[in-house]
Parts: sequence; structure tokens; C-alpha cells
Amino acid sequence: MIVDSFFPRKIKAALKNEPPGMWMPNLPDKCIRLSSGYPAPALIPTEELKAAVVNLLEEEHDLPLHYLGSPKIAKLKEKILKKLAERDIHVSGEELLMTSGACQAIDLIARVLLDDETFVIVESPTYMEALEIFKNYTQRFISIPIDQHGLQTDQLERVLEERRGKGLALPRLLYTIPTFHNPTGTTMSAERRQHVLDLAVKYNFLILEDDAYGELGFEKSPLPLKAIDNDGPVIHIGSLSKTVAPGMRIGWVAGAREFITACSWFKKDLNPSFTQATMAVFLDKTNYEERLKLLRNTYHDKCDVLISAMEKFLPEYVSWFVPKGGYFVWIKIRGVDTSLLLNRALSAGVSFVPGKHFFLNQKHGNEYLRLSFSYADKNDIVKGIRILGNLLM
Amino acid sequence: MIVDSFFPRKIKAALKNEPPGMWMPNLPDKCIRLSSGYPAPALIPTEELKAAVVNLLEEEHDLPLHYLGSPKIAKLKEKILKKLAERDIHVSGEELLMTSGACQAIDLIARVLLDDETFVIVESPTYMEALEIFKNYTQRFISIPIDQHGLQTDQLERVLEERRGKGLALPRLLYTIPTFHNPTGTTMSAERRQHVLDLAVKYNFLILEDDAYGELGFEKSPLPLKAIDNDGPVIHIGSLSKTVAPGMRIGWVAGAREFITACSWFKKDLNPSFTQATMAVFLDKTNYEERLKLLRNTYHDKCDVLISAMEKFLPEYVSWFVPKGGYFVWIKIRGVDTSLLLNRALSAGVSFVPGKHFFLNQKHGNEYLRLSFSYADKNDIVKGIRILGNLLM
Repeated sequence: MIVDSFFPRKIKAALKNEPPGMWMPNLPDKCIRLSSGYPAPALIPTEELKAAVVNLLEEEHDLPLHYLGSPKIAKLKEKILKKLAERDIHVSGEELLMTSGACQAIDLIARVLLDDETFVIVESPTYMEALEIFKNYTQRFISIPIDQHGLQTDQLERVLEERRGKGLALPRLLYTIPTFHNPTGTTMSAERRQHVLDLAVKYNFLILEDDAYGELGFEKSPLPLKAIDNDGPVIHIGSLSKTVAPGMRIGWVAGAREFITACSWFKKDLNPSFTQATMAVFLDKTNYEERLKLLRNTYHDKCDVLISAMEKFLPEYVSWFVPKGGYFVWIKIRGVDTSLLLNRALSAGVSFVPGKHFFLNQKHGNEYLRLSFSYADKNDIVKGIRILGNLLM
Repeated sequence: MIVDSFFPRKIKAALKNEPPGMWMPNLPDKCIRLSSGYPAPALIPTEELKAAVVNLLEEEHDLPLHYLGSPKIAKLKEKILKKLAERDIHVSGEELLMTSGACQAIDLIARVLLDDETFVIVESPTYMEALEIFKNYTQRFISIPIDQHGLQTDQLERVLEERRGKGLALPRLLYTIPTFHNPTGTTMSAERRQHVLDLAVKYNFLILEDDAYGELGFEKSPLPLKAIDNDGPVIHIGSLSKTVAPGMRIGWVAGAREFITACSWFKKDLNPSFTQATMAVFLDKTNYEERLKLLRNTYHDKCDVLISAMEKFLPEYVSWFVPKGGYFVWIKIRGVDTSLLLNRALSAGVSFVPGKHFFLNQKHGNEYLRLSFSYADKNDIVKGIRILGNLLM
């Protein structure tokens, strides 16, 4: 039986793209992982999560191991609502859906909003996993470059004006990571935030705000777009993957009620009650603000170590942007194809992500690469940059 | 901003259906739950799962709390492959995808195989959650009745013949629960199993075999369709929700490689590494065959208690089918609208699921209801049936 003859046209179109998750080869053992956007191992609250599981099961027995058993599931949602309110996002329970990490949220949004005729605006560069998700639903993109102040909204306006003038289809969705952007580390300026909201209203598109790193400002974080979103075009997604533990798969999407209803309609994996209830217990026993302080200081420190090492060990033709939060530093190495460099780097014991994977058109970004200071420890960060420096001499 | 104006046509069509999960009102406290298809609380291995978490985190520390950290994720997959092989389903790692329960598997399959022009064959009655999933993607169904020997394949053949004769579109997918069917408890006979496989080849459709209850035969279970599927039209799904704990959300889909590749392409919630690694540890420390024996004996016993209570307390015009495994008994109460009966039953302290929810056309099934013997304890089962009997006197 020829199974792929059963796939509808839209699926066949999606399957013509590059396979998902192919951006990194397997890493050799003991490789210094400057590629991984993972939390620092020491910051994962392993003991606390273990205690949360033990407490939960002692208190509720089999309840959280059933489908919808634990009252803690509702409590987790309350806690996330409170957390959002502290960042000036005021939504009701009907405007919030818990998801299996931010990725499932992006996927649900794509499913509910996109068909193969929909145009999506993406930042260039942007989070590769989001690009892959969107490409499952549409092949129509408008790519707008990022600079040190985030998305270039004047360019976006020019493109929209031009499309309207020519009678071309207008986009339905903009995907942006306005705060501590992946991969560039940049943050959208206050003026551009207002500008993009104005454009959304004027040109009638929704904004998908990916706020995965929003709480991880070294000093302070700007308010999310959703907090200044009077006309309601913003769909806000976040997760505990960067601040607690990605393996717990706790994320959410907040937005207009009709939209959240539609997402919940298509979310058919049922509630992962065990992990949600465990996370509720963990949050209940944790001073989250203290935790954030620790995270911010640690990552700030590690970022400083990375930048100092780069200043010391990398040749002059290498340049970068110094982030004010998040996990990443975006680097340009003039005249070097970073995909080729990666092979040599892996042999020498250090990894990074070649820049091209963050671009819609992978002919771009060849001279760029993304370094993560979140996962490797400080000694390894210095060692890794020294290796990289040697390769570039 | 009017958010639903952004929904594509296919989404608007889906949202015209009845909202999902509306088949049961909230149950009053202390209600005897003969509605819930949950495992018996005493059979949920709470202590063992707690120990598995503790062992896992002591052995691997933060590893299973990262994205793909734990080697146990691969181990879980190996264990499921072995489990399938014991039931004569021989597939490779590339032909198996782990999912967040069987529901996510059904949803992925629907996404990859259906568009709004696709016809799906469903059993009548069938699992309501599956109906809801399919209705998100297509409104075109062919409904074939079930009798005590399962799907009436002769009727299916007649419909297919007729459609081909008239030049009408042929279905692309059949959804079946051949073993210990939900809600009827019936099992498809050996002849019909062969017949439906022959029809799939002759009329070129895929068979989605939902085997959620397949291991829970009171005496023995027939081989799954996938085990006798020489021409490969069967996609097999299963889960540990009925045999270990639904809150862990561990399920899978096994089928042709190209098909599993496509499903993995659309599975964008990333691996829930914590629960998968925990389950791998649990299975490693558990004698699964012994566990199954305990489950089979316990549910057999509880089913007997339910049937005896029905014989004793229900009036003569009530009839039912005695299942040989699974969780459910399907009951017909001549001349009674079970949706109306439910309100009275809930007030009196017992719940069931009205039959109509298992039918595509909810004008059917009014005289039927589904009782579950899995969740309530034996005393409560008797008490619940006595209450029901009183209501019917």
C-alpha cells in the first residue's frame, strides 16, 4: 500500500519542505554545548520538583494520575493568571489556555489561523521551530529584518503599504519575539512596539508575541506587547521552560476569548494532569520572584563571561550584539561560512547553531551564528570560545 | 478586533459543530461515577510511579527535566516496541511514534490524512472523543453499525460497492475499536477482521485501529488487526492510560514509515521527557504481565458484579451486552430517553453516559447508555445500579 498517496494536498506541500529538526548534527560526547538553548543544569530545581511529586502524590494519591483528577490543575492556571497580571496582562480564565510548552501554543495558533492562502509576517532571523511550524500550514511569508532595536517596523509598514497599493493579499499574522529575541538577543524599542500595534490595527492582522524569555532581563524587562494592546490584536505565549524546566512542558497562550476557545477545540492531547499538578505544587512552595532574581543574576554573569571571552579570544573581524537578557548572543564572522565552521568546531569540541537555520531563505545568514550562554558552565564557555578563536586564527 | 473573522473557512466549519467535551454535566460530589472510563483508583500504581520519579531524578539529576535529555526516552520506545512484538505487531523504531495518549495519536492521524473533502468511516456507535477530533477536519462521514460481533462488514461492503457504482467519493480512513469496543464492549469476530482488511485493500482505504483496551481481555484477547495486516493498511494506536495511568499521557501510533514520518512532522509539542523517562523507569521495575493479570482479574470481577446487580435490580425491559474485556457495558432501556434519565440519576447520586453522545447523529442512541465498571468500587457499583433500578420502577 502506497501510504503517501493518502496525504491531502496541503500535507504533501508541507512535506516538500526540509525535514524538521535537522539544524544540528548529533553532538559528540563532551562537546561544549554553546548551541543548546537549555537552562543551566544547576538552575533546574530537580530536588524541589522531586519533592513536589512526593508531596502531591502523598496528598492526592491517584488523583493527579487520572484524566482531570487534581484540583491542582485549576490552581496552576490561577497561578499563571496571577503571573501574567504582575506583568500587566489582565486576562480571564477563558482567555488563557495551558499548553504543552510554547511550541504547542504556536502550533495551535497556526492551525486555527492559517491555511495555505494565508500570509504570515516573520522576523528575519527568527526562532527556527516557529518557522517549521508555520511551514506546515502555509508557504506564504513576508520576512522583515531585525536590527538592534528589534523588528524594523518602518520596513514592515512600507511592505504593507505597497501590498495594499498593488491589491495584493495582506498578512493575517505577525510572529515576533519582541523581548530578548531568539536568536539575536535584541529587544524591540518602545516606539516600535507602539508602531507595530498601530500597524496591526490599520492593516488588520494579529500579532503572535512569543515571550519565552521576557522574564529573563538582566536588569529590567520591558512590558509585553499584550500589556499595551488596547485594541486586542496580540496573542501572547509564554512558558516555564526557560525559568523552571523544559521537560515539564508547561506553556500557555493568552488572547481573545473566541480565539482561546478555538485553540482549546483543537487541543486534543488532553490535559497532562500529572505534570500540571506537580508544577502547581512547585510554584506554591517556591518564591518565584527570588528564583527569577537568581536566574537573572546567573545568566547575566554567564553572558558577561561569554562576552569577555569573545573580546579576548575572537579575531577583530568578528562582531556581535550584547543582549540585555535571555539566553543568546548573535555573532557575525565576516567572510566565514558558519555551516562549514561547525564541522571543524564539533571536531574541536564546541557547538553553536549556524545562522542560516534562523532564516526563511537559508541562503541568508551564512556569516552568522548563535551562541547560547545558558547551558554550558562558565569554565566551559571560556574554553569553548578559546577553541572557536583558534579555529578562526 | 473581531478575532473570529481571522479564522479560515475550515476552522469556521469545525466551530459550527457542538462544542467538544459537552457530553457530561459536572458531577455532584459523592456521585457514584459509572460514567467515567477511568482506571480503578486502587490499580493506579501511585507508589511505584512516585518511586520511579525519585529513582529517575536521583540517577539522572536534571537530565529528564531538559528537552531531550534522558536516555530513558529511547528506552521507553524500545519497551513499547517489545510490547507490540509480544502481540505479534512487528514494527521498527521508524514505524512508531510516541504520543501524548491515544487522543493525540488520533488527532495527528486526522491532521495528516483528512481534509474537508475526505470521507471517514466510523462505527455506530463509537468513541465520542474520536468523533470530535474527526469533525475538526471533515464533515463527511459514513456510519456503519456495530452488532455483537463488531463492525458489520457486510453492510460496509454494500455501502462501498454502492458508492463505487454511483461514482461517489470513496472513504480514505476507517476508524475502528475492534477489541472491547467503547462504548459497546463488543469484539470484532475473526471473519470480520479478515473481511475488513480485504475491503481496505480492495477499496483502498486505511484502517485506524484503536487498541486502547486490547490488553484487557478477561480471558484472552484476539490478535490486533495490525498483527494480521499483510498489505499494511492498518495504523495501530495504543496507550498506557488504561493499564497504568492516564495522567501520564503515554500513547503511541504504529504504522508505515512514511506515515509515521508525516505524523512526527506535525507533532510539535516536543517530547514530554519527564513523564516518558518516568514511565520507562516504572516499566523497568514492573512485571507488566503480572500487572495485566491483576487488571484483568479485577475488571472481570467488577464486570461480574455489575452484571449481577443489573440482573437483580433492573427491570425486564432493560437489556445489555456482556463484554469479554475492557471497561464498559452498553445498555438499552426500551422507551426511555437516557438524556432525561441522567438528570434524575445525578440527583439520586449515580452517573452514566447517555448513548446519543456516541453517535454521529445524536438523534440516535436515545434508548442507550454506557456504564463503566472500571472506576467505581464494587459496593458503589451495586449501590449505583440499585439507584438506577429504583428510578426505572
